Amino acid sequence: MKAVGICGSDVHYLKVTFFDFVVEEPMVIGHECAGIVEEMGSEVTHLVPGDRVALEPGISCWRCSYCKQGSYNLCPEMKFFATPPVHGSLANQVVHPADLCFKLPEDITLEEGAMCEPLSVGVHACRRANVGPETNVLIMGAGPIGLVALLAARAFGAPRVVIVDVDEFRLSVAKDLGASETVKVSTNEEEVAGEVELIKKAMGESVDITLDCAGFNKTMTTALNATRPGGKVCLVGMGHNEMTVPLTPAAAREVDVVGVFRYKNTWPLCIEFLRSGKIDVKPLITHRFGFSQKEVEDAFETSARGGSAIKVMFNL
Amino acid sequence: MKAVGICGSDVHYLKVTFFDFVVEEPMVIGHECAGIVEEMGSEVTHLVPGDRVALEPGISCWRCSYCKQGSYNLCPEMKFFATPPVHGSLANQVVHPADLCFKLPEDITLEEGAMCEPLSVGVHACRRANVGPETNVLIMGAGPIGLVALLAARAFGAPRVVIVDVDEFRLSVAKDLGASETVKVSTNEEEVAGEVELIKKAMGESVDITLDCAGFNKTMTTALNATRPGGKVCLVGMGHNEMTVPLTPAAAREVDVVGVFRYKNTWPLCIEFLRSGKIDVKPLITHRFGFSQKEVEDAFETSARGGSAIKVMFNL
Amino acid sequence: MKAVGICGSDVHYLKVTFFDFVVEEPMVIGHECAGIVEEMGSEVTHLVPGDRVALEPGISCWRCSYCKQGSYNLCPEMKFFATPPVHGSLANQVVHPADLCFKLPEDITLEEGAMCEPLSVGVHACRRANVGPETNVLIMGAGPIGLVALLAARAFGAPRVVIVDVDEFRLSVAKDLGASETVKVSTNEEEVAGEVELIKKAMGESVDITLDCAGFNKTMTTALNATRPGGKVCLVGMGHNEMTVPLTPAAAREVDVVGVFRYKNTWPLCIEFLRSGKIDVKPLITHRFGFSQKEVEDAFETSARGGSAIKVMFNL
Amino acid sequence: MKAVGICGSDVHYLKVTFFDFVVEEPMVIGHECAGIVEEMGSEVTHLVPGDRVALEPGISCWRCSYCKQGSYNLCPEMKFFATPPVHGSLANQVVHPADLCFKLPEDITLEEGAMCEPLSVGVHACRRANVGPETNVLIMGAGPIGLVALLAARAFGAPRVVIVDVDEFRLSVAKDLGASETVKVSTNEEEVAGEVELIKKAMGESVDITLDCAGFNKTMTTALNATRPGGKVCLVGMGHNEMTVPLTPAAAREVDVVGVFRYKNTWPLCIEFLRSGKIDVKPLITHRFGFSQKEVEDAFETSARGGSAIKVMFNL
Repeated sequence: MKAVGICGSDVHYLKVTFFDFVVEEPMVIGHECAGIVEEMGSEVTHLVPGDRVALEPGISCWRCSYCKQGSYNLCPEMKFFATPPVHGSLANQVVHPADLCFKLPEDITLEEGAMCEPLSVGVHACRRANVGPETNVLIMGAGPIGLVALLAARAFGAPRVVIVDVDEFRLSVAKDLGASETVKVSTNEEEVAGEVELIKKAMGESVDITLDCAGFNKTMTTALNATRPGGKVCLVGMGHNEMTVPLTPAAAREVDVVGVFRYKNTWPLCIEFLRSGKIDVKPLITHRFGFSQKEVEDAFETSARGGSAIKVMFNL
Repeated sequence: MKAVGICGSDVHYLKVTFFDFVVEEPMVIGHECAGIVEEMGSEVTHLVPGDRVALEPGISCWRCSYCKQGSYNLCPEMKFFATPPVHGSLANQVVHPADLCFKLPEDITLEEGAMCEPLSVGVHACRRANVGPETNVLIMGAGPIGLVALLAARAFGAPRVVIVDVDEFRLSVAKDLGASETVKVSTNEEEVAGEVELIKKAMGESVDITLDCAGFNKTMTTALNATRPGGKVCLVGMGHNEMTVPLTPAAAREVDVVGVFRYKNTWPLCIEFLRSGKIDVKPLITHRFGFSQKEVEDAFETSARGGSAIKVMFNL
Repeated sequence: MKAVGICGSDVHYLKVTFFDFVVEEPMVIGHECAGIVEEMGSEVTHLVPGDRVALEPGISCWRCSYCKQGSYNLCPEMKFFATPPVHGSLANQVVHPADLCFKLPEDITLEEGAMCEPLSVGVHACRRANVGPETNVLIMGAGPIGLVALLAARAFGAPRVVIVDVDEFRLSVAKDLGASETVKVSTNEEEVAGEVELIKKAMGESVDITLDCAGFNKTMTTALNATRPGGKVCLVGMGHNEMTVPLTPAAAREVDVVGVFRYKNTWPLCIEFLRSGKIDVKPLITHRFGFSQKEVEDAFETSARGGSAIKVMFNL
Repeated sequence: MKAVGICGSDVHYLKVTFFDFVVEEPMVIGHECAGIVEEMGSEVTHLVPGDRVALEPGISCWRCSYCKQGSYNLCPEMKFFATPPVHGSLANQVVHPADLCFKLPEDITLEEGAMCEPLSVGVHACRRANVGPETNVLIMGAGPIGLVALLAARAFGAPRVVIVDVDEFRLSVAKDLGASETVKVSTNEEEVAGEVELIKKAMGESVDITLDCAGFNKTMTTALNATRPGGKVCLVGMGHNEMTVPLTPAAAREVDVVGVFRYKNTWPLCIEFLRSGKIDVKPLITHRFGFSQKEVEDAFETSARGGSAIKVMFNL
């Protein structure tokens, strides 16, 4: 392992629990990673020692109906880095299936390779929502996931991408990364109607797809109300668990809500986007740390604090 | 006009309002209808006077992007029977575009023709949710819409259809109409978890698609929790407007929520289902009334009361 | 192994070659099979010794992009019963992955289980062509594959299925199996235009999908010309390799040509069709043989001769 | 009318016939056009006199099942500029439905507006074949249609586009327009195998989609053989009517053949591609003529001669 990013879920695990997953024993965390091949099994033909590779973190069973039908991300037997009881990849060495190790082109760094994991979340959301050159996209939330969704939506050809957040700094980063327009909103739930108007005005045209990368009652209400009839809202963020939202009027306009769970078959596309320059993830990597005890502590504190930290990366 | 059914929305309009639609002036209601052709325009070639026809009630603009892209049900310029300010079809005569008048085969009655309208709601929901011979279907609610959804799901080939309601009588009707199993539930929101278990047991296999034909917090919560990862929940009923439901965990299993607004291109398929005997709507027509003042009042009272009344039909 | 059917490819292999595949060493043939479980690996939980199972014959790699994206039938590393250099299943015992052994319900015989293989070809063709309750289907050829396509098309809900052949006996079998109409044609290529008219008349409505289960210049020309604009022709049979057909005028009516290679994820659906009675394959099994030298020779001769032989089955 | 391009079909009509369409009386030709609004009907709200508009040339019936289901390009009642017996738009003035007149942004010229018609052919082909950021595209033929297909494929995000022709000049134009690689081939049908190898080498990765913009036996054979299993070949060109091609082996690799007939709902997307700069059609307009008798004759001669003429445009 040479580069490992810190994800919000890692920070949660430090505090013992992440959704249904509970850490009961010491567990290595980390799942956004890239490294250098040391050894391979005798049947592996696409890699040689010294190859620089990005790792897809989930090992599925390939025997269940989900795997066989092309939805391996929904495999109930999935073994996934840093999802209890499976250890993560924030380690010097890991053993991993060769078909989940994707060789990086020469001009892509290991850090960028590790970024394929968060980027995959954006790519999978865009695929599930059918983002393309005929769909204007609204993104709720300009945190790490909102920003990779923005990069992915642009790479999929969305003509206009408007992004919304409560934080000026994040919006300025989004603007630099290629957002067509940004809209600053409040956390006050009573201002939804006015904010929907601001968003529609910023878009200029119809909001065809909304990616809610925050996942709160307010962001989802805004998403449902802003999206045009027949459009789609993709729920990516997980701010609230139970949600109170105007689902019925949205359904009555045939606004569909699609979910995402991790990703599937995204690494080759992410690497192609990086290689061709359609996506540049380097501006997202704001902080870098080594692997001493002190630096590890600093790294997690930096990541948990947010602020100007978007992606915190370990270089091992 | 020879046969006109009463819909829940008609009953609502009698009480002045239905969702956003407000009745401000006297309005003829009725939109589930069939009749006999008296005259046609000079360019009409598929009809002659005396033909018995079922009427599709909505006239769309055919100039907007929705119409042109095959989603005419979402046309913002739609003129629809008994949606203010457009009058309905509970009348002796109506003028209607010939391409919305579908000739009935000889062995289909005018009453059955009028039933194409509610049946279309079930058909459109099945299409949007991709019901077919590989999808087991759960239906929440055995009211008129739940029952047409059941008939449609079976006609689309669903191997198992389980239907859920609070009312024993409705469930017995559903069983007679071909439900694989029925599950009686309560209105107590705290019993969701146990009821989901009962439903899964009744299904025996995975719940691939749920059609929520009630649309309350509890039914939608049950729907989201019962449906398998990667499945779909179609929100058809409109019990609650704002909903409090566990949307995030459902999205994280890629359970999508799809909405429906009316229907499109459903009359030919409904007539084919009736003609071939794949669907028999006659058991749904429980009460018939003529068109005297007294009978009209009785008809609406009967429909509003519910109980053993499923579909109340005027024979003019 | 308890029941093994003979396929046309088996007969070809006896004569040394089948398309690109050449038999260079002695090879066991057979791939339509069912048997009884003797032993399982220690991690297998869905089977016990004595279970009656139908076998899906192809073992794919689960590492290539085809496998991962849900198209395992296109896996370039596929190991398939009786495709050189892999031996087939016309043997007393075979070792096979447990996830390719599908347990048969009690009321399904082993012979019917073996029929899941040819039936899978029909099911896969119907899926690829989107056969359903809104598509009338034309089938060219009433041989074994045409007949399983007919059974599958009906099970997928096709309202009308018209089947075409040069042989009266086969057409009478097709009629018994549920064809809406049959059309007898000649092998004379100059009669295509007239036969297309006969076919359209027999269908009565539009030909939405054609399954060409013969695959000759004449059948494909008929298929392309008979199918409505925007419809699909699925090329299943392999009569001719290079084809001379009016492809351009078909393409200019947006009639698409879709191909099929074997099948994927079909066994559970086939077993469900057999269990529910939507499909009855028993009438297709016309001849049965034991496993003595003499009977084996007779069996292959019977299969190769055609005539009244549809499916020839070994009972071991 | 202010700008009208000459299409190959116009040149054909001058010689009396184009496929099934026969010109029996004098007919105005032209259908690639843009102009300035003089007057509108009283209900038209999106245009005012003086607006510069591009015209979609086909008027469909909006009453048939094709129109209602979103496939208006297949409408059997279509009235289309310069398709007998309907006159074309190479005229000073035309009367045309307002919803088929698309306003041009300020920085798009009328000539570019007229180019929306040929560009629509490329856009519709890309949509039908599902071109996107995950599909490498091979284009057979670098004539006017091959070149607009190239522009469209790049705008839809294809990572690599390889284009093939017999003509060096056309290939050099294609290279300038953004082709990843070009491959020069011969007209000798016996060289297909070697040329397929050259093409695969030029692509470097899998050929996911091929757009055959020539439509000859040889180009289609190359297309079918070069495309990867599970890929698509879109037949756009119409060189040969009846075709002799290896359709069966292609079908057995699940390479589908999809057709195109004109286009639908393409003008807004074409205008957006021009506005955003994702597509620049100006290099395609190689020759311009006025509307005197002499110039008209020269224009058609120039277009018919080919050579360095790609698109010949009238400026009225």
